[in-house]
Amino acid sequence: MQKITFITGNEGKLREARAILSELDVVSKDIDLPEIQEIDAKKVIEAKLQEAYALHKGSYIVEDTSLYANALKGLPGPLIKWFLQTLGNDGLAELVYKYENHSAYASSMIGYITEQGDTHFFEGRVDGKIVTPQGASDFGWDPIFVPEGKEKTFAQMSADEKNAISHRKLAFTKLADFLDE
Amino acid sequence: MQKITFITGNEGKLREARAILSELDVVSKDIDLPEIQEIDAKKVIEAKLQEAYALHKGSYIVEDTSLYANALKGLPGPLIKWFLQTLGNDGLAELVYKYENHSAYASSMIGYITEQGDTHFFEGRVDGKIVTPQGASDFGWDPIFVPEGKEKTFAQMSADEKNAISHRKLAFTKLADFLDE
Repeated sequence: MQKITFITGNEGKLREARAILSELDVVSKDIDLPEIQEIDAKKVIEAKLQEAYALHKGSYIVEDTSLYANALKGLPGPLIKWFLQTLGNDGLAELVYKYENHSAYASSMIGYITEQGDTHFFEGRVDGKIVTPQGASDFGWDPIFVPEGKEKTFAQMSADEKNAISHRKLAFTKLADFLDE
Repeated sequence: MQKITFITGNEGKLREARAILSELDVVSKDIDLPEIQEIDAKKVIEAKLQEAYALHKGSYIVEDTSLYANALKGLPGPLIKWFLQTLGNDGLAELVYKYENHSAYASSMIGYITEQGDTHFFEGRVDGKIVTPQGASDFGWDPIFVPEGKEKTFAQMSADEKNAISHRKLAFTKLADFLDE
């Protein structure tokens, strides 16, 4: 069984990766790699992959989630963490509501580095809109994002319901398809 | 004459530093240090100082400028570069104008690492407000910031006029005072 190391400290993301990449031995490693300041998620991830690879040669996965508001021309994007830290979900929704266009998309970008040092990227994207917070607020911006065709925020869905359609599910599925080939 | 290395690729900032730190031999080094994703300017700078010091032991200065909009609870802060890249000065002013409070402050944070590896920080802060762009747009957010008690944006001032009152001037003056002691 091929071994792959998912660099994450998030148990939920690890479980999801294991369920989708069922033909691999997915182990996790919680190392705190510096996150560079970039609006391009690929560059943020590439830097982390290279850092992990330099520390110890191997095959790694890094995942990064972004939320792009169309009215804000793509902000917050990968900077979502800082928008939440300063404005909170309430403040971010309030900001987007000041514009007419509330559309947004959620993106999960997965970077994969092979033992040989080649990098590959897989993006899962879900279109939707920003709403005022609804549902449990324990996971990032889940309470303010409603996927297209749904009536509920990610926070109002069960884990199974969310994971079946999520941006991260799409990205991991692309990675699994790539590894199958 | 004590030598100090200012890590910057910006000729204007170097000239300003030399004028204020006249009792030192200020040389510049244009190395591209990774900028970590942080809303705390000190942490961004600390990481750069440590990286430079690790590459080659010595005494360094790193400067970082931030713009804090009070209505946005401190955003963009050190993330100003990405707000400008996505929204531009027009878009950022438009965003702030959606709120009643247009007040903001400009901050220059200087980090100084001694040959022994001790770090010190010096902040220069100028209060003011965000306005719609006025003046030449060739230097960052200068066209949208009017300092308190002034009627012009930084972009509408002469270099001398701006440098006499700027956040960077204040920060460098604090550093010079510290070094004089």
